[in-house]
Amino acid sequence: MLDRIFGTRRTRQFQRILRNGKVTLLCLVLTIVVLRGNLGAGKFGTPEQDFKEIRETFYQYRGKRAEPRRVLEELQTTTEQTASSTSNNYAEFDINKLFVDEEEDVKKNPNEPYSLGPKISDWDEQRGEWLKQNPNFPNFLNANKPRVLLVTGSSPKPCENPVGDHYLLKSIKNKIDYCRVHGIEVFYNMALLDAEMAGFWAKLPLIRKLLLSHPEVEFLWWMDSDAMFTDMAFEVPWERYKDKNLVLHGWNEMVYDQKNWIGLNTGSFLLRNCQWSLDLLDAWAPMGPKGKIRDEAGKILTRELKDRPVFEADDQSAMVWLLVSQKDKWASKVYLENHYYLHGYWGILVDRYEEMIASYHPGLGDHRWPLVTHFVGCKPCGKFGDYPVERCLKQMDRAFNFGDNQILQMYGFTHKSLASRRVKRTRNDSSNPLEVKDELGLLHPAYKVTKVSSSS
Amino acid sequence: MLDRIFGTRRTRQFQRILRNGKVTLLCLVLTIVVLRGNLGAGKFGTPEQDFKEIRETFYQYRGKRAEPRRVLEELQTTTEQTASSTSNNYAEFDINKLFVDEEEDVKKNPNEPYSLGPKISDWDEQRGEWLKQNPNFPNFLNANKPRVLLVTGSSPKPCENPVGDHYLLKSIKNKIDYCRVHGIEVFYNMALLDAEMAGFWAKLPLIRKLLLSHPEVEFLWWMDSDAMFTDMAFEVPWERYKDKNLVLHGWNEMVYDQKNWIGLNTGSFLLRNCQWSLDLLDAWAPMGPKGKIRDEAGKILTRELKDRPVFEADDQSAMVWLLVSQKDKWASKVYLENHYYLHGYWGILVDRYEEMIASYHPGLGDHRWPLVTHFVGCKPCGKFGDYPVERCLKQMDRAFNFGDNQILQMYGFTHKSLASRRVKRTRNDSSNPLEVKDELGLLHPAYKVTKVSSSS
Repeated sequence: MLDRIFGTRRTRQFQRILRNGKVTLLCLVLTIVVLRGNLGAGKFGTPEQDFKEIRETFYQYRGKRAEPRRVLEELQTTTEQTASSTSNNYAEFDINKLFVDEEEDVKKNPNEPYSLGPKISDWDEQRGEWLKQNPNFPNFLNANKPRVLLVTGSSPKPCENPVGDHYLLKSIKNKIDYCRVHGIEVFYNMALLDAEMAGFWAKLPLIRKLLLSHPEVEFLWWMDSDAMFTDMAFEVPWERYKDKNLVLHGWNEMVYDQKNWIGLNTGSFLLRNCQWSLDLLDAWAPMGPKGKIRDEAGKILTRELKDRPVFEADDQSAMVWLLVSQKDKWASKVYLENHYYLHGYWGILVDRYEEMIASYHPGLGDHRWPLVTHFVGCKPCGKFGDYPVERCLKQMDRAFNFGDNQILQMYGFTHKSLASRRVKRTRNDSSNPLEVKDELGLLHPAYKVTKVSSSS
Repeated sequence: MLDRIFGTRRTRQFQRILRNGKVTLLCLVLTIVVLRGNLGAGKFGTPEQDFKEIRETFYQYRGKRAEPRRVLEELQTTTEQTASSTSNNYAEFDINKLFVDEEEDVKKNPNEPYSLGPKISDWDEQRGEWLKQNPNFPNFLNANKPRVLLVTGSSPKPCENPVGDHYLLKSIKNKIDYCRVHGIEVFYNMALLDAEMAGFWAKLPLIRKLLLSHPEVEFLWWMDSDAMFTDMAFEVPWERYKDKNLVLHGWNEMVYDQKNWIGLNTGSFLLRNCQWSLDLLDAWAPMGPKGKIRDEAGKILTRELKDRPVFEADDQSAMVWLLVSQKDKWASKVYLENHYYLHGYWGILVDRYEEMIASYHPGLGDHRWPLVTHFVGCKPCGKFGDYPVERCLKQMDRAFNFGDNQILQMYGFTHKSLASRRVKRTRNDSSNPLEVKDELGLLHPAYKVTKVSSSS
């Protein structure tokens, strides 16, 4: 009909204008929709106002890709190339975009001797006074149980390889589980407190800071991120160490006689909160500052210790050296423990898990059922480890599951196999769950009980 | 000279044999070295024997790539292609090799109605009796403070994208910090207890299992892995909920009047350990079983609730529907809290952090300083989120640092900026650390004190 009024050519022009107009209108609407979504909610003073904004931005995007957005995505891919900053696809995202350009720290004066902090000589007195003033924060939770803080951590940067962070995550879950069962608090560090003491030395400033900030803590338990608990039932024999200030896994002969650099392991150790420990940290630290000091110290350690390869000074070798060279000063308060695996080298443990399950039970803590399986050398957060990757990761999964089974059994589950992420029931649920026997006694263990004197 | 004795051709043959022989010998030696390293330690009975094996395997590989191994690596790259299972390079490793082929679960009878477990009708009595028998595991830590278990978790598989696990790690560190300060225990779940209730529904079987296994727990606090604490000083007002059994962030009008699917949020909520809660879980669960039930239930929810997009039934929509359709049964014990951000939608919070720092202080918990910033829709563990990746990750870093600063300030540090992983000092160390003012009172807060009656 329009043809007759306006003529065919004009009608077609008109129809084309109409069509284009519809497309233009659609684009306009969608642009507004996108802008509203991406601008966020702006500033609002009341929850009601907040909510309006929530509603507007939220239900356009939440859930399974509501219609307007799907159309928009298609538009985006078919029109000009979108800036990658608007991409919702994690696979396309370059993580390096998140790294803020940060200046190097100002170099310290190399002639100034390194110090962990101002010298403190009366910490036992300061701490004792504080404990007296603060009976609500006792350093012993019951007669046999000191207050313990387990300290671990990792870099604030994503791991250099994709699976590294996944294993760090499993490792901290593992520690959370053990510590919850045993009434131990956890501190996960991701801050480099002192740039000079980067890498394995970073634990020293951190430990000192935590001891001084938490006088209620009796023992600080340092544990590497590549160490996992594999005996959830083993309680550390605290009474054994009542006259000791430092407990590490190791052998007296290997340290004091052989001066072997792996005569002890600093990947899992207990340090009492006292003046002696502050002094030890001060004596331990000097080989740590990175650069010339650490490099030169490394050469000394390689020369002085048995079988040590050539590399910069590490905290473990330095501890061996410290104990050997200043034995009279430190040894009487150091316990080198080898009757259970406060640290257990993974290489000799992981292939025996099935054997352990067949022959033994949790609670032994030693070679029969190791307290800790420590994946030294695997370095899953880096690019390159000291062992084949497949072996490391498979064994870390097995160790994790071996420990996790002891947690799951409290709830009537277990992993389908030591290699499997999946779980299966070990018993049916009951309508009287509190009558079900707690086989390992981990649900409500005696050592978790806090008995402090009541106050009003 | 050999020429003259044996002739040129034979001499050359002989020389060639010698050369090949040397190479053969070298290969043989190196093969033995590698085999010894890779076979591990085998079985040993005593720590001394363990140690010998440690020494042999250990110092060949630990440290900065000792010589024999470097030669071996070069040989490996230049000779035939090595099996990737021996590679020490994480970048070359295909994570899928670790996935055990696992069969699908046997499908349940679709006609059999879903059940979270055997019906329990006397849980208050069972639990009350248990608490009486176990005074060492009280459900209140002091007059105002119930025993709380914070429950969170993630998939046992690595995230589909490289950075996902790193953000899960930061998120759990964040939760560990808040909970340590507030005397709350943490349970990190990585087990799928019921394959029918996968995805967002997995929390239901888990919550039920934990309530029934831990009668000492008064409140279970579920928190999504994409939610972070941003007010480390805010203590939940437990007395406000003394007559309530379920506390969620939300608005009464939006739920009961509008039936809006985002009228409440199930990403962070409190559930009391009692019969009412078991009944609620039973009433909540039926829309969850994956497949036909969940899909059909999704359609019902989209139809019945305001503004809900089309997708399978989710636990949050189902909760709205449950409260609306059975209001008389549940509402009197449900508290929809909006005076602080028990859940805080990230979109309206993250751009205001600097403003908050300038104008307010921790401890408020609300829009001025939100208790929780919840990154709904970001899905950093998946391939594709509902928002641009860069915005999500940058803001998650900022939220993490915003919360982390409140932890670090206890120790005299802070992040260099909300975007920076690095930290700087806010004060010099002191030789009298216990006299330093604890600005936010987080080091030894009153609400963390456990006051239980003493026993012998």
